[in-house]
Amino acid sequence: MGVNQGRTEAERWRPPTPLANIKALAFDAYGTLFDVFSVTARCEQLFPGSGAALTQLWRAKQLQYSLLRSLMGRYEDFWQLTEDALLYASESLKLELTATTQRQLMDAYLNLAVFSDVGRGLAALKKRGLLLAILSNGAPQMLNAAVKNAGIDTAFDAIISAHEFKIFKPSPRVYRSACTRLRVAESALGFVSSNSWDISGAASAGLTTFWAQRSAGEPADRLGFPATYVITSLDDLSRLFG
Amino acid sequence: MGVNQGRTEAERWRPPTPLANIKALAFDAYGTLFDVFSVTARCEQLFPGSGAALTQLWRAKQLQYSLLRSLMGRYEDFWQLTEDALLYASESLKLELTATTQRQLMDAYLNLAVFSDVGRGLAALKKRGLLLAILSNGAPQMLNAAVKNAGIDTAFDAIISAHEFKIFKPSPRVYRSACTRLRVAESALGFVSSNSWDISGAASAGLTTFWAQRSAGEPADRLGFPATYVITSLDDLSRLFG
Repeated sequence: MGVNQGRTEAERWRPPTPLANIKALAFDAYGTLFDVFSVTARCEQLFPGSGAALTQLWRAKQLQYSLLRSLMGRYEDFWQLTEDALLYASESLKLELTATTQRQLMDAYLNLAVFSDVGRGLAALKKRGLLLAILSNGAPQMLNAAVKNAGIDTAFDAIISAHEFKIFKPSPRVYRSACTRLRVAESALGFVSSNSWDISGAASAGLTTFWAQRSAGEPADRLGFPATYVITSLDDLSRLFG
Repeated sequence: MGVNQGRTEAERWRPPTPLANIKALAFDAYGTLFDVFSVTARCEQLFPGSGAALTQLWRAKQLQYSLLRSLMGRYEDFWQLTEDALLYASESLKLELTATTQRQLMDAYLNLAVFSDVGRGLAALKKRGLLLAILSNGAPQMLNAAVKNAGIDTAFDAIISAHEFKIFKPSPRVYRSACTRLRVAESALGFVSSNSWDISGAASAGLTTFWAQRSAGEPADRLGFPATYVITSLDDLSRLFG
């Protein structure tokens, strides 16, 4: 962990807001708190030998559809997109979905495992007096079900969904809305995500960013706005504020 | 070929403008006129055994960066994005690029093969009195070099790049600009692309669309705006107007 030296595009890197000024942290949900690849197990169980391919294409299309629809100005909520992406992925891989398997796979999104550092990390950060929020593209009912089923619903002061704005991250509107909602200045909000593109989006919108690099050696996306800090877990994050 | 019955999302399908009303056709460039997978050969030559993986990830990131930057409001031209995507893809696959191999791979984008039906199809459509244009995310100098090197530069009445608008397709602004540039009404412009998402973008912007389904059995993207017509080649297209 540590301050990111802006190795990819140093010219756009700004000195970080001192951590003492950070009053609130907003967390991305899928891939950051929730391990979406826990969906792989269910995919593999239903389609032996094709679980990894289905999960990967499903996830790629889910992100792609959120971007395409945002740019087209044709918002649909993330639950609908997730279903559309699943239908595309299974059709593309020639895997036959029944109404039952489709429901089982979609339900996996409501029952995601959290990474092992999440409960401990959130508790430690809360103890340090920080406001904690989720800031996610997920539809409100998806997020509410996921945090409740994972037992982390009481950890957050706010659960903010892009649904309110009818456009998805990385639109700057979504990131900036978290400041309004949490009643903190832009310079007092930190944003945490395992998705490098999400970090660039938040950094471009002016937030202090913490890239949770959950896959060792994963390169940063080349979008011009590198993370302020690179961490490997929420334990790292709570130590930074320690 | 034929009128698309709107199999994926019939509710959004509108009856097509009679073909006699179509005065101009705008073509997507990469994947529609130019075979971008001819880049694979060069990738495989430089990185034996990794050519397909590199081409695929490079292309996926190129599209993703165009969408992310559009949504972030941080436009960079498509040449820059293509280079950024190549750097990401090679880093991710742990393939070492030198200045020379990087230039060789980028240059492949200026010397793309056209599909075998392109010269013949464009000539037949031109003979039928249609205005022909390219409408592409490609930077102007990329498009100019590619059409010239492929010997199809005299076929077009206009080469329109998203660069003029500092945002990429599928933003409706880019599609609608082609009507202004070609001085035809929206109902008189047809749009041709092999990319299903690009067809949905154009259809959402109000154009009559022709999906050139170059990969047999490829499913349509589930973005709510299916193609008006599905064709397999530009020969099909010229027969429709025959």
